Parts: sequence; C-alpha cells; structure tokens
Amino acid sequence: MSGLPDASIACAARLDFRAGKAQPTSGVAPGFTQCNMISLPKDWAWDFLLYAQRNPRPCPVLDVSEPGSHETVLAPGADLRTDLPLYRIWRDGELVEEVADATQAWTEHPDLVSFLIGCSFTFETPMMMAGIGVRHIEQGSNVPMYLTQIACRPAGRLHGNLVVSMRPIPADRVSEAVIISGRTPAVHGAPVHVGAPEALGISDLSRPEFGDAVEIRPGEVPVFWACGVTPQAALMASRPPFAITHAPGHMFITDIPDTRWQV
Amino acid sequence: MSGLPDASIACAARLDFRAGKAQPTSGVAPGFTQCNMISLPKDWAWDFLLYAQRNPRPCPVLDVSEPGSHETVLAPGADLRTDLPLYRIWRDGELVEEVADATQAWTEHPDLVSFLIGCSFTFETPMMMAGIGVRHIEQGSNVPMYLTQIACRPAGRLHGNLVVSMRPIPADRVSEAVIISGRTPAVHGAPVHVGAPEALGISDLSRPEFGDAVEIRPGEVPVFWACGVTPQAALMASRPPFAITHAPGHMFITDIPDTRWQV
Repeated sequence: MSGLPDASIACAARLDFRAGKAQPTSGVAPGFTQCNMISLPKDWAWDFLLYAQRNPRPCPVLDVSEPGSHETVLAPGADLRTDLPLYRIWRDGELVEEVADATQAWTEHPDLVSFLIGCSFTFETPMMMAGIGVRHIEQGSNVPMYLTQIACRPAGRLHGNLVVSMRPIPADRVSEAVIISGRTPAVHGAPVHVGAPEALGISDLSRPEFGDAVEIRPGEVPVFWACGVTPQAALMASRPPFAITHAPGHMFITDIPDTRWQV
Repeated sequence: MSGLPDASIACAARLDFRAGKAQPTSGVAPGFTQCNMISLPKDWAWDFLLYAQRNPRPCPVLDVSEPGSHETVLAPGADLRTDLPLYRIWRDGELVEEVADATQAWTEHPDLVSFLIGCSFTFETPMMMAGIGVRHIEQGSNVPMYLTQIACRPAGRLHGNLVVSMRPIPADRVSEAVIISGRTPAVHGAPVHVGAPEALGISDLSRPEFGDAVEIRPGEVPVFWACGVTPQAALMASRPPFAITHAPGHMFITDIPDTRWQV
C-alpha cells in the first residue's frame, strides 16, 4: 500500500449497511478499524465503563457517545442507528430481536450511551500481510466465538464471563501471530490463551456460541483472543432492562486506519 | 535481576509514607508501578472516567475504587488515605492545602471514588537499565512538569489542558527512549512531543509549573511525556467542589511489577 488507505471504502461499506445489506464484516474495508458496539441507558453507563476499565482485554473502549447521540468521532457523518449491518435488541438480558436498522429501538430510550469497543478483525490485515492465513476469511464465514468459564472482574451491577474469538494458526506461526496482534493492545492485543481449549471450559470447538465453526487442520493450534462480544455475555448474566448491540461479527466500520492502534 | 522484584520494598515505602515521611517517589521502590491519584465525589466519577477514556495518553486508568473505599487491587492492604507521601486538597478548583495524611479530608465526602492512573516513573527503570540517565533522579529532585497549551478532549463538566513531564535525553538516545517507553502504553507510553517546547506553549524550561527544573546539557533534547498531573489541570479549569489528589511527583507505590504493563 502507498500512503493512507482510502477512507471512502469504509464510508461505502457503512452506506451499504445503511441501505439494508447484512453480512459479517471480517475482511470488509481492510485497513480500517472495526468496532463492537453496546448501547445502554444512561443509568447503566457508569457500570459499563467501569466494567470495561476492569476488563481491558475484552473491552478496550475506543469511543463513548454523548447520551442520546448517534455519532462518534471515529467516523464523522456515520449514524450508529443504521450503519452497522446487523443489530441485536436486548430486554432484561434476553436477546429478543435481530434487526438491520435499530432506529425504532433507539427511540425507546432517548438517553442511550453507546460504547464502541476495539475488534480483533483489526489485526487480521497485518496477519494476512505477514502470510498467516485467517481461516474464517478463507472460508467466507463469521469468526468462531466461545463463551468461556473465565469470570470477568465485576463492576456495579455488571458481571459475566469472558468471550473469546478463535483462529487456528500453524504451530510454527503462533509466535508471529502473538507478536503481530500484541502490537495493538487497543484492539484486544495478544492472545489470552494458546491451545488447550478445555482449560477455558470449551468442550467442542465445532460448536461456537457465536459465529461459525471453522476447520482446524493437522499441525494447527487453536489460538484465542479476548472478544468484544464479552459485553453481550454480561448482558445475559446481569440482565439490564434494555440494550442494543451489534450482532456478533457484524461490526461498525470506522474511518480510523488500523495502524493508529500500533504501539 | 533474578525472579520477581521483592514486593516488600513497595510495602515498606508505603508504610514510611503512612508514618509521615514526605518525599518525591521517583527512584523509590524501583521495579514497582507508581500511580497518580485523583479522588472525586461519586457525582463526578462518570465525567472523570469518560475524560480519562477520551484522553488515554495522560490518563491511563489502572484502577478505580468502589465509592467510599480506600482500597485498591493494585496493593492489597494499602490505605489510599495515608499511604501516599503527600496529598493535595482541592475546593472549587483551588488548591487549599497539602497534607501528608488525607484521612480527615476523606471524612468530608463518604462517597469519594478514587482513580489510580499510570505514571511515567514506571519506564524510568528500564531507561536507566539501558544506560539512559534520568536527570531528575541523578539530581535528587522531582521531575519537571509543564502545563501546555494543548487542550484535552472534554467530557461532561471536565475540561483542561495537557500536562507533560520532561526528561532531557542525549540526541543519539532519543529513539531508544521512545521505543522503551512506547512498550508501556498503560503508563503513558511513548513521548507526545520531542524537542520544540515552544510548540507546546512552554516558553521557559527552567520554570516548570510542577516539580523542579533540571539541567539540560549541550547535545540533549527535551523530551515530553503525557503526565498524570493532567487531571489536576482539569480540576483548576473545571472547578469541581472537592477533590483529593497526590502532590505532583509524590505517587502511590503499588505492588505491581513494572513489567506487567509491557506489550
């Protein structure tokens, strides 16, 4: 690549989603930071921001909107109500609906605070540029995500377990995958766990709680990164009255180049 | 060094401060993370945590206490009311007192929330181990800190300018100082500014707003890191009714090894 990546591809993707297109975003607008989203009534915002501070690996907060605002500094002109490909609506900790447009849901709570959280898709581009294949992109599917038995540190009324994403990595490239992803701690950073899924409480890699299973080939090791779906596990465990989130793997695409997060 | 550093030296330093000793902490308990502190009434906690999220370079939050608690996971058994060497008491944005024991001040607000924020002293140890001298430690003085003309991103009622710490670095070691400090983004990370103090609005390096001036020798460049005194500049600009902070350079010493923050 020469120069900065062209932000118009991020904007074009958001406009497609605004028009109703619903697809997982891994591999879309490569080079631009993608975000998890969770929008909560103002009354729950302190608990959530504290939960994120106490669990920075799964919940690296990249921006927080003003109450009732649908805007973010990460993508001026974007509308958080419509520009993600797929949303989830939550009531009392239950997933009640998936919608491609959350405008109607947003009207229920005029004081929603939206949190945009770094996404591991951000380091998939440099991994691929280093020649490390990303299986779910190769397969054209969503990344597999698993609910672990690892408890996050609670904050106020919020508690729940860690969710991880998994990518199978050839054993001789694991170190490189660790180093490349470790350069971007603001988007989950290095893996939290390499191999030994049973130690996370994962009994069957072919049955992820979120996203799609992927093939694991001989000589590959399942590598686990902290995942921004962790807040959705907290919703299920803690049951706030209302929330809007992205659907797992269906992220908000920002105008921020991935390289911004490299240390 | 072999093995983990001995946490008893961090505890011993805190007990000295609890007994009344008041001194700058740069160079004390080397290898253990030091923290800036700001304690605010619960009513201001959301604004501050959001301010920190929006200004992560000067305000990397390492822990947040429960309202009214004097405890932190960063140093079990420590007492935030007594275990810093010197505190500042603020009323309506005015510094009204410096005390070695903040117990009395703490009784005024039973709901104080304490924020512990990473400190650049943390990367002084690896800099010195790499043979890069740290002038204020060599001089036995406090680090010089300057209030810049760079506005932080506001949050709620909080606004103010960036404060930076400065270390003179030989021109041929600046790159190394950048790389070493850049490895620890949770404790301010890489410099925000190298040379050209006038571009920060600093007209006279010999007159820091906080701490002590240090000698700058021929061939050395003033290098500026984001500083955890930035919240005190926000107090002065935003005038919350009450706050307790550390005195600049007089930090809270935790039991956490510096290496924890390396990426």
